[in-house]
Amino acid sequence: MKKKYLLAPGPTPVPEVALLDMARPIFHHRTDEFREVFKRVSEGLKYVFQTTSPVITQVSSGSGAMEASVVNLLSPKDKAIVVEAGYFGVRFSEICRAYEVEVVPIVLTWGEAVDAAAVRQALRENPDAKAVYTTFCETSTGVVHDVRALGEVVRKTEALLVIDAISGLGTMELRPDDWGIDIVVAGSQKALMIPPGLSFLSVSDKAWKVIEANKSPVYYFDLLAARERLESWNSRFTPALTLVAALDKSLGLIKEEGIENVWARHRMLGRACRAGAKALGLELFAKRPADGLTAVIMPEGIDAYEVYERLLKDYGVTVGTGHAKIRNRVIRLAHLGYAGRFDVILGLSAVEMVLKEMGADIEVGRGVAAAEEVFVTAD
Amino acid sequence: MKKKYLLAPGPTPVPEVALLDMARPIFHHRTDEFREVFKRVSEGLKYVFQTTSPVITQVSSGSGAMEASVVNLLSPKDKAIVVEAGYFGVRFSEICRAYEVEVVPIVLTWGEAVDAAAVRQALRENPDAKAVYTTFCETSTGVVHDVRALGEVVRKTEALLVIDAISGLGTMELRPDDWGIDIVVAGSQKALMIPPGLSFLSVSDKAWKVIEANKSPVYYFDLLAARERLESWNSRFTPALTLVAALDKSLGLIKEEGIENVWARHRMLGRACRAGAKALGLELFAKRPADGLTAVIMPEGIDAYEVYERLLKDYGVTVGTGHAKIRNRVIRLAHLGYAGRFDVILGLSAVEMVLKEMGADIEVGRGVAAAEEVFVTAD
Repeated sequence: MKKKYLLAPGPTPVPEVALLDMARPIFHHRTDEFREVFKRVSEGLKYVFQTTSPVITQVSSGSGAMEASVVNLLSPKDKAIVVEAGYFGVRFSEICRAYEVEVVPIVLTWGEAVDAAAVRQALRENPDAKAVYTTFCETSTGVVHDVRALGEVVRKTEALLVIDAISGLGTMELRPDDWGIDIVVAGSQKALMIPPGLSFLSVSDKAWKVIEANKSPVYYFDLLAARERLESWNSRFTPALTLVAALDKSLGLIKEEGIENVWARHRMLGRACRAGAKALGLELFAKRPADGLTAVIMPEGIDAYEVYERLLKDYGVTVGTGHAKIRNRVIRLAHLGYAGRFDVILGLSAVEMVLKEMGADIEVGRGVAAAEEVFVTAD
Repeated sequence: MKKKYLLAPGPTPVPEVALLDMARPIFHHRTDEFREVFKRVSEGLKYVFQTTSPVITQVSSGSGAMEASVVNLLSPKDKAIVVEAGYFGVRFSEICRAYEVEVVPIVLTWGEAVDAAAVRQALRENPDAKAVYTTFCETSTGVVHDVRALGEVVRKTEALLVIDAISGLGTMELRPDDWGIDIVVAGSQKALMIPPGLSFLSVSDKAWKVIEANKSPVYYFDLLAARERLESWNSRFTPALTLVAALDKSLGLIKEEGIENVWARHRMLGRACRAGAKALGLELFAKRPADGLTAVIMPEGIDAYEVYERLLKDYGVTVGTGHAKIRNRVIRLAHLGYAGRFDVILGLSAVEMVLKEMGADIEVGRGVAAAEEVFVTAD
């Protein structure tokens, strides 16, 4: 027997009440019963997104919502500014280029956060840019970008601000309506605490106007058609209804806790995890760390991928590996969604033991102690 | 307490072993454990599809696979012949037109099956047509098209034959490799017996060549990119992993029964349901009825939508309504996927009682008796 623990930044653990819901007999979606669930879920999403605009639900991976945010807004030869600060920022550029959109990349060293001044500059140099794309929490580096500051810059222009909040939504304060963020992209398998399979987009009035005027081809990811069906609480195609019903349960937990408290919980977990890593003498990869996951640089001479493998094989703990070029340098500990203090304790404890076994110069227990300090002194 | 029964043609009931699997704690997808499941599922799909080609799994509704079969094959201004024999046939035309593909429709009266001669004629008149699109089982009318005969016609040309087998796959004999069918589109929520959220495509060598040469924009539904990742049993984006794991269980049941036996079971269920309806003096809507669902015309003076509502409210039985223009004329009884003899008995029994209550001139019990006759004499 090996007990298993999931500390990867998505898919993340699903609360028991939602898991059990998915074992219920299947029901039909063209019924008042389902429309009521879909209405409650759609309203609940507006609460989590902190927006008064309708939130569109799609059956797809998060990348499908990223695609929707490109093909509904832009046409071939349009210009988009893309913040390339990690693996997922680059994905926006890939999608834009696939649809013949001209990309003006803002290329950052991985681990860095974008400066609003750089976006202002890019917009000045490219006054014809139709949109600015960035991640909120860049899952590959653990960085959170200051999207509020970006909103201040972009809202003064004709351009739209689109953020990939797949791993950020529901972990850190985000107020798209107040902050001038036009499209927020999210996925089901992070802080929304259900399995992968659904993606979401909130869309501002400013963005709807652009979408309404855009004549480029779109069918499956057609946001206007989805919005029209949503008015009667219907989905356009057969919805992934077991996931929608599970989301109803997860959103219930979020509403019960209160979104500000959800953010505060993640803030505390992030702080504790960072304190633990530092107490072990480890460096954080992110210059501006997010609260939902912590990317930790492994000590000189220690292969991060081997740490990942040992955590999995010897301790049953799944953490995130480093993406691409930082695969052998970084591991990522998630404390995201259905996560509490002992997820941080467990992750730090496991890392301490593995590093010790691998001969790193660390003192076991120091990381856990530092995290506990944060917890006992937190309000 | 009202016990509920799901007899709609999708989503269909999910076997308990698959339902319970979805209540398991979440696991991670970039692991050997998941790759093993994904490999087994992908191989199992080839068995159900009866093909040696790789079967691509997507996170989307079935319509997402229909879209993939258009955008990967065709470019703007290409020409496609589309069999419009019902609601879902028309959807292929909608998708083609959304992507600026010229549609040559073969328009049939709802309830009719397409004649291979009509497709031969259309191909002769449009030798530049790149593809022929049709449903296999047209879910909205209960018709099964003779896709084997269509394959004989289309394989002699440069054109590709694409079939929407969303409700047909796993209910009736289908041999794409032998019959010259180039793309088979399927969904998870019918005879594959898991909830909605996954879609599938099998692709022939002839079709891959066209896809490889096609330069039209595609990203999320890029079949070449999906095939490449599938070679190492990876999915390109985060997969809907609870559904994939559940599918592993469902496919296990199908393999255990044997695909020919699965087809034979549906043949028997379809025969029994049709016999029952006829014994009640009711007419079938489909001229060439499929085995997975039976569309039944309600007697003169009886509103089919009211029958649907009474079945739901008074008996807890969900059947399919008629789509669009046949909404007040037809109900659809599914015997599809995780279905056995008593699903047919139950459906006929409920219909008999509701029709009697609504004053129709029928003799209760006659439908059930006729179905039982079929069952006791079946081999």
